[in-house]
Amino acid sequence: MNGSRVHEASATGLLDRCRDRVRPALVEAVARLHPWTGEMAAYALGWADTAGTPDPGGSEGKGVRQALALLGAEAVGADAAEAVPGAVAVELVHTFSLLHDDIMDADALRRQRPAVWKSYGTGPAVLAGDALLAQAVTSLAEAPGPCTGAAVRHLCGTLTTLVSGQAEDLRFEDRPWSGPGAVEPDEYRSMAEHKTGALLGCALALGAVLGGAPDRTVTTLDRAGRHLGLAFQAVDDILGIWGDPGVTGKPVHADLRQGKKTYPVLVALAGGGKAAHELDALLASGRPIDGATAARVAALVEEAGGRTRTREEARRHQDAARHALREAPLRHSAAGELDVLFTHLLDRTW
Amino acid sequence: MNGSRVHEASATGLLDRCRDRVRPALVEAVARLHPWTGEMAAYALGWADTAGTPDPGGSEGKGVRQALALLGAEAVGADAAEAVPGAVAVELVHTFSLLHDDIMDADALRRQRPAVWKSYGTGPAVLAGDALLAQAVTSLAEAPGPCTGAAVRHLCGTLTTLVSGQAEDLRFEDRPWSGPGAVEPDEYRSMAEHKTGALLGCALALGAVLGGAPDRTVTTLDRAGRHLGLAFQAVDDILGIWGDPGVTGKPVHADLRQGKKTYPVLVALAGGGKAAHELDALLASGRPIDGATAARVAALVEEAGGRTRTREEARRHQDAARHALREAPLRHSAAGELDVLFTHLLDRTW
Repeated sequence: MNGSRVHEASATGLLDRCRDRVRPALVEAVARLHPWTGEMAAYALGWADTAGTPDPGGSEGKGVRQALALLGAEAVGADAAEAVPGAVAVELVHTFSLLHDDIMDADALRRQRPAVWKSYGTGPAVLAGDALLAQAVTSLAEAPGPCTGAAVRHLCGTLTTLVSGQAEDLRFEDRPWSGPGAVEPDEYRSMAEHKTGALLGCALALGAVLGGAPDRTVTTLDRAGRHLGLAFQAVDDILGIWGDPGVTGKPVHADLRQGKKTYPVLVALAGGGKAAHELDALLASGRPIDGATAARVAALVEEAGGRTRTREEARRHQDAARHALREAPLRHSAAGELDVLFTHLLDRTW
Repeated sequence: MNGSRVHEASATGLLDRCRDRVRPALVEAVARLHPWTGEMAAYALGWADTAGTPDPGGSEGKGVRQALALLGAEAVGADAAEAVPGAVAVELVHTFSLLHDDIMDADALRRQRPAVWKSYGTGPAVLAGDALLAQAVTSLAEAPGPCTGAAVRHLCGTLTTLVSGQAEDLRFEDRPWSGPGAVEPDEYRSMAEHKTGALLGCALALGAVLGGAPDRTVTTLDRAGRHLGLAFQAVDDILGIWGDPGVTGKPVHADLRQGKKTYPVLVALAGGGKAAHELDALLASGRPIDGATAARVAALVEEAGGRTRTREEARRHQDAARHALREAPLRHSAAGELDVLFTHLLDRTW
């Protein structure tokens, strides 16, 4: 295997190890739900199909957040077991947010299967999300040990931030691409930090809190996770325009066809110049974006520097995340594993 | 004033006093939300119209839950101030649950105004509910004092119960009125305990927990609140069929026209006899229930004993609630106020 493939195998092994470690507690948490919401939760988690039959087809998420929680604890010198209630909480919060966001964004597909609201109906999907959110906080609040209160407060702060991020994102839809009231790249970054970064930061921080780390270490790990989230979102936005549909599972130019205000487009528009002006005129026309138009939009975003500047944005946050990891007094082996995981998450096909 | 009116004035004064006491903290909690979700929350709480203009029209709820929390603390000898974070939490949870339940039940009206999902759209209403739920737990988790952890665990348990109750209620819709798989009166009672009783019990219990009461007193107060909730639901079910539209603000025979499986109908069907059989045949036909049919259904439910037995159900739980209050070692004045409040809630026009 070459270096990159060794790295890849190592990251996959790491995620598998963490998933196996958290799974019994996660299964137990879902088993405490009403059977119907439990069935929807199992579907949302990729464990089963709509008939409740175990689904080994691999619709399960990567489990990044649970891995960050366990590694957060190990990095501060604690046993990963301490962080399991935190890992369960962040996975359930993540599943809740995907489930409700899909309703709000009218996204019919999630991990190449119908979204929960498409399979079960909107009302039941709202309920399943509520059940997951309630169980997330419960799982953490019932954790033994002296750090539970601080962990619950950290999670609560994150929940409020997460919901604010989704509110900001939804509000972007009604705002113009340019001119007065246009969404600025900085506002997009702030939204992404709230919607994506906060929960990744929380996952790492909860591991550290439950592992008994001092506040300063917790804050640094939280910051590392937030930067990881921002880098991750920037990569995601690049893939949403230029990603290979065979790899991403999304149609070509998916984000452009949906009219999503993402960083590459916003930063291209903000840069000015001839390509930016043509791009602005195309987007401002308000016409539905068909295949040919989407290809033209993508080319103009690239020409106006949107792709390059988004790659720079991703690298900047990747560096900041790594820098934060080096800043904290972490156990060497776990810090190395976090580095492997960070690289794996950001080194996608872009 | 006669005795009943004196009692009424006293209960209203009590609710007003508690609302004034909790209001600043509740306003502060809502102010911490994203401005957009905050606007929807203010609308849902009856504080403002959809333009964000203060709405003194009285679309605000009674504030029963916040009052129970404060009185719960006073009843165990603590200052009401100790219970304010609990009062905020239960009011926010109540508002969250109305907001999401209205989406799930497709209820277009709430307190004689369009429901939040009707005014703002389903997606934004899902988001506003999420924000309220997150803020509810946050408000409690940030309370100072040594009892916060126990209070958060109590609230979390209630959230899971509440969501289960809503799941049970939604599942009743797909089940038959009679025969195999029919909803039994006992199942209805269990659903009502989860959906309505649990939060009223939690409100009283949180006051006691935050007031430093021993577990046994907390459990007894929780039980009192649950019985209050069951009595309240029974009265509500009677009003949903036989209530005066001028008083309830709902159309005549509202629950029957919506095909709701409520206690009076279920207990009438379960009783057997001629009227029950005719009722069963009418409901089993699956025809839409128009005005004339609803009147006939209401008459048959009454003839089959559904109204009488629901009144008995209400009285039984009212007595059990009062009995629980007497069982706990409570401060005399606050116990008296709780009794006034219980009477006020159950002594509606039925």
